[in-house]
Amino acid sequence: MNKIAVLGAGSWGTALSIVLADNGHDVRLWSHRKEQAEDINRTHKNEKYLDVAIPEQITAFYELEQALNDVNAVIVVVPTKAIREVCQQLNQILTNKVTVIHATKGIEPDSLKRVSEMIDEEMPGYDYEDIVVLSGPSHAEEVALRHPTTVTVASVNLEKAKIAQNLFNSDTFRVYTSSDLLGIELGGALKNIIALGAGISDGLGYGDNAKAALITRGLAEIARLGTSLGANPLSFLGLSGVGDLIVTCTSVHSRNWRAGNLLGKGNKLDDVLDEMGMVVEGVRTVQAAYQFAKEQVVEMPITTGIYQILFEDKDPRKVVEQLMTRDKREEMDDIASLLNERYS
Amino acid sequence: MNKIAVLGAGSWGTALSIVLADNGHDVRLWSHRKEQAEDINRTHKNEKYLDVAIPEQITAFYELEQALNDVNAVIVVVPTKAIREVCQQLNQILTNKVTVIHATKGIEPDSLKRVSEMIDEEMPGYDYEDIVVLSGPSHAEEVALRHPTTVTVASVNLEKAKIAQNLFNSDTFRVYTSSDLLGIELGGALKNIIALGAGISDGLGYGDNAKAALITRGLAEIARLGTSLGANPLSFLGLSGVGDLIVTCTSVHSRNWRAGNLLGKGNKLDDVLDEMGMVVEGVRTVQAAYQFAKEQVVEMPITTGIYQILFEDKDPRKVVEQLMTRDKREEMDDIASLLNERYS
Repeated sequence: MNKIAVLGAGSWGTALSIVLADNGHDVRLWSHRKEQAEDINRTHKNEKYLDVAIPEQITAFYELEQALNDVNAVIVVVPTKAIREVCQQLNQILTNKVTVIHATKGIEPDSLKRVSEMIDEEMPGYDYEDIVVLSGPSHAEEVALRHPTTVTVASVNLEKAKIAQNLFNSDTFRVYTSSDLLGIELGGALKNIIALGAGISDGLGYGDNAKAALITRGLAEIARLGTSLGANPLSFLGLSGVGDLIVTCTSVHSRNWRAGNLLGKGNKLDDVLDEMGMVVEGVRTVQAAYQFAKEQVVEMPITTGIYQILFEDKDPRKVVEQLMTRDKREEMDDIASLLNERYS
Repeated sequence: MNKIAVLGAGSWGTALSIVLADNGHDVRLWSHRKEQAEDINRTHKNEKYLDVAIPEQITAFYELEQALNDVNAVIVVVPTKAIREVCQQLNQILTNKVTVIHATKGIEPDSLKRVSEMIDEEMPGYDYEDIVVLSGPSHAEEVALRHPTTVTVASVNLEKAKIAQNLFNSDTFRVYTSSDLLGIELGGALKNIIALGAGISDGLGYGDNAKAALITRGLAEIARLGTSLGANPLSFLGLSGVGDLIVTCTSVHSRNWRAGNLLGKGNKLDDVLDEMGMVVEGVRTVQAAYQFAKEQVVEMPITTGIYQILFEDKDPRKVVEQLMTRDKREEMDDIASLLNERYS
């Protein structure tokens, strides 16, 4: 048994707490809102986020210091924009080295940092090599119902990934390891761009062929960018790449898909964001990837097209036309040559 | 303008004829049934297979020799089981070397030959290196409606693939080239196994997480087998791999998915095949892949599990349990080591 703090009591943090509790660990779930923490302890429910009974083994806290008392692992599941603040506090409170695992998908706007890089910067006492990411195709609701789910945990230091694997792995939650932290983080973050694109394609009234083309060529594009940044292209063939992409692009519950769908039907970005009334992560990720592509001199025609629809008011049909009439080419030429460089 | 024979007047052969006719070619569509050929020429429809007007530029024939008169390319779109017979006739009739492109997905039972290998054996006057395959995520109905579609054409001889690309590429039908004939053919054929599995998962009442896991780990398994046979693992990241898989596994119209769904609900294979009243390609492909895996000593736990459900009457829930409780492992270890061998 381990004593583990889970920081962030949204649906994903709650679902991961349940996995850990089922595995017999002592779980300390932290929310920054006092009322929510007290409700969880009183009712053993977290109804706003997840409609399922919360095991007794999970205790909620609203004081971070209490939540962290004597733990040997910390799971960070706060939104991207809260990562730095929470990690600054973590760095001050923690006195011994614990395993740090994050399960947050995103890229910081402007700085273009991944979550592990943000954690590293705010926690100077920890080695970047030891940070672990958990990512994969996983609706929180289904995890809480103990439906079969698979994820990948990755760390530059494979031994740390194995520690995370041992904490989470169970009969209904199968955990694979990887040493490609970069590729696993990028897959989880960048897939939201493609989900937006899939929504746009459906909104335009195109069929399965067009959507499959968008997803597949979008994946090649993400893999190209990732490989140029040093990731292993095979990671994009895995759970945090293809797997997460399938779940996000084929679920009408996905926020990114819904936003894309409205755009494809001819709505403007501001109106779409107004109507949805919440953050659409993919919109920020498109900006980040567009910047990345320029800096790395990597061709990202789909990302560029979506950027033009979002921020330059370009007609989605014109973008599709521009994608379909590009120069003829080989399917995997760029990635193959990047791979040849890597292995030669 | 080229004079092109399309052999096989089912929905896919008809859709490909339309693409070629739109590109200005003189298309000769062959059906072995006299009545069907005459109907097409009289009504410019092929209603049993595709509910769309057939352009005047397409002429149907039922005599193979007439269809082949003076053509410089032949597209073979007959079912796997008719490939050998049609190619024997082709070999006798053709006097000059034409470009041979096939668009048939499948593996021959027992011999485990791919379609290009069958063509090669029956057409000794042609070089295996020059045979082209066309594959990718493409419902025929959507192609006929000119909805955006992308496919890959592959040949060991990349120049031949480029000839095929030039024949088919258009504003609504984008064609990529590849020199990995093996990987592109295997992707198209083996994906039916995973479609069966996706249907079983849905039939068991599991959610999106389980289905995404099945598809992703199934893809890794296909890539592992393909790589061990000499294919490029990146091909499975492309249109004939991921792309075709997405279309097949998320469409409830897929025969393989429907068969799997009935199996997941507890029906036995014989009853499922009786109820469907038609060939389920994936069932034969499972047998082929299972044999392949044994010969190549490649681990294929999902294929093995589906084989056990189909032919050894194993309870699908027990198979899922056995998949979820395998030894813990790295995500892409086998493929990575195969790749290292390839590039070192």
